[in-house]
Amino acid sequence: MLYEISEKAIQLVNEGKKMIKFNMGDPDQPTPNEIVEAALEAMKQGKTKYASSVGEKGLREELASIHNVSAGNVMITAGSKWAIFSLMFLLLKKGGNVIIPTPHWTSYELIAKSFGAEMRFLRTDIDSGWKIDVEKLGNLIDQKTRLIVLNNPNNPTSKVIDEKVLEEIVQIANNKGVTILSDEVYSDISFVKTKSILDFDDKHVLVKSFSKTFAMTGWRIGYIIVEKELVEKMMKLNQITLTNVPVFIQIAALKALELRKEIVDKIREDYRRRADLACKILSKTKMKFSRPDAPFYVFPKYDNLDSESFALNLLDDGVAIAPGTTFGDYREYFRIALTVPDEEIELGLKKICEALP
Amino acid sequence: MLYEISEKAIQLVNEGKKMIKFNMGDPDQPTPNEIVEAALEAMKQGKTKYASSVGEKGLREELASIHNVSAGNVMITAGSKWAIFSLMFLLLKKGGNVIIPTPHWTSYELIAKSFGAEMRFLRTDIDSGWKIDVEKLGNLIDQKTRLIVLNNPNNPTSKVIDEKVLEEIVQIANNKGVTILSDEVYSDISFVKTKSILDFDDKHVLVKSFSKTFAMTGWRIGYIIVEKELVEKMMKLNQITLTNVPVFIQIAALKALELRKEIVDKIREDYRRRADLACKILSKTKMKFSRPDAPFYVFPKYDNLDSESFALNLLDDGVAIAPGTTFGDYREYFRIALTVPDEEIELGLKKICEALP
Repeated sequence: MLYEISEKAIQLVNEGKKMIKFNMGDPDQPTPNEIVEAALEAMKQGKTKYASSVGEKGLREELASIHNVSAGNVMITAGSKWAIFSLMFLLLKKGGNVIIPTPHWTSYELIAKSFGAEMRFLRTDIDSGWKIDVEKLGNLIDQKTRLIVLNNPNNPTSKVIDEKVLEEIVQIANNKGVTILSDEVYSDISFVKTKSILDFDDKHVLVKSFSKTFAMTGWRIGYIIVEKELVEKMMKLNQITLTNVPVFIQIAALKALELRKEIVDKIREDYRRRADLACKILSKTKMKFSRPDAPFYVFPKYDNLDSESFALNLLDDGVAIAPGTTFGDYREYFRIALTVPDEEIELGLKKICEALP
Repeated sequence: MLYEISEKAIQLVNEGKKMIKFNMGDPDQPTPNEIVEAALEAMKQGKTKYASSVGEKGLREELASIHNVSAGNVMITAGSKWAIFSLMFLLLKKGGNVIIPTPHWTSYELIAKSFGAEMRFLRTDIDSGWKIDVEKLGNLIDQKTRLIVLNNPNNPTSKVIDEKVLEEIVQIANNKGVTILSDEVYSDISFVKTKSILDFDDKHVLVKSFSKTFAMTGWRIGYIIVEKELVEKMMKLNQITLTNVPVFIQIAALKALELRKEIVDKIREDYRRRADLACKILSKTKMKFSRPDAPFYVFPKYDNLDSESFALNLLDDGVAIAPGTTFGDYREYFRIALTVPDEEIELGLKKICEALP
């Protein structure tokens, strides 16, 4: 349904309609100029040849030092999604199940489905502050469980998992010998302290991206930190699929890391201001919502709403949103991405309020 | 084994050893400057955001016009390898078999193996001019055959499939309702007239790349021409794996197409000269070989050679080659990629001759 909304939104824009794009997690900020310049320089130097399927040494070493692991545990991927697909493909292609707390990013489900893996969803709710029920999680695990997927901070709720809860999840996973895949693509720009899975136990898997942190969505570069045996297997999968991430893109990413303090502070502040603005407006409405712990999303609930028809009709008012059903069984909810300028946030929320039944 | 050779070659080079790299199909020519400039310009214009998973409209339309198909049949992929992986994954993940003539590019086999598809190899030999035996091919097809993979021109033999043979293959595939995947990444720079699969029947699938034609290997961009229903399915696979090929790379590829006459003529002449040079030297030796119809490879045979140990030992002499076993049951053969300057071709072949048992 999200892709249907996106396609229709693009079509309407092509026909000349103005559209407030709350539907996509694609920052409106341009990629910082220094990063672009680093890519240009690398291209001019001829960094346009086949390269290592595991990633460039310099970039892997820098990431290893940031995460306090060995470079042999770091693999550069064509976006975090490719890291997730690769890992799930390798662990689940021969069967088994994966546990996914909901609401969840659509791709986890579609990826698992693409090779027929069994999914076990664990519902969380706004009323309990989106808290994962660790006991229920434990009950879902069986001998065929290959993976637990955590998204911290979460898309669409922007909730950061409580440290104590995370510790309990790690404990239960360790006791039962199940790997956690922790997708932390929003953590660097989180508004609150966000512990990484690696802070608890380096047996688990961390997935990160340059997309959100550095406004580099279209560059397609991310990375995974995982045990060496799986790096080896993922590298072999890369050899028969993508070969390598273009080296000039890896050099741009290395430049991003150099400048990360400054870039991250700026981006985080932009989104904190926008989140405050959205919360201020939403708090004056009948919608229920939880204050975001991180960029980019707010995930409000409106009692008895059919968010699918609501989202489709809202396109005619020039606002694109993601219906809650995109993220699981959340028909009364919808997701707003604050990846548009402040004035569009105000106008878009005003239009949403007017359109609500 | 090829990857082992490549890794060891890289290691020796890092230790300061000079290496003639006959092992990689990676052109020594730089990407033409106009193509690099087009990418730079696009980056500066902010073409760094998420984009369509099927590819940019302008590039698809241009390719459609070149191949005389509809833009709806064209999908842009992150290299031709990704096109091949995607198609094979979609057609074979639930079982079935694929027919692959040998010698064959390693990736076909490794891709099919990665999701457990059955492979049926059809041997061709130097003594019959690498001709595909159409009757034998027909006998390999059964109800579970999902795909026949053709590589035209072929890697490693650089042989172009005879038009009449190709016509017979298409006929037999049509009669039995089997799809042909024709990988034609070397055809634009072929030395002889090379008919495309689409010249016979547009029900079959064409895979192409910008890598070889435009010296753009590290950019990771190719395309596939296939029926719309499969474009739709491949697009959905892209949505859960790679999202999109970076738009600035697609704009660079569009520039390459604009300049293709001029670029292709130059690259083809470079390789024709190199092929002539290599053949001249080889014809004075005891090695058996067939004259290349296309870039980049020569695939000589030396009676009773164990090409694996030969290739490993040859690294110490500063020459990297690909042993014949990389491409199937061809232990007495090895592959030389003419992707090095002329003087290195002379020196490298001299060293090979000296090292032969």
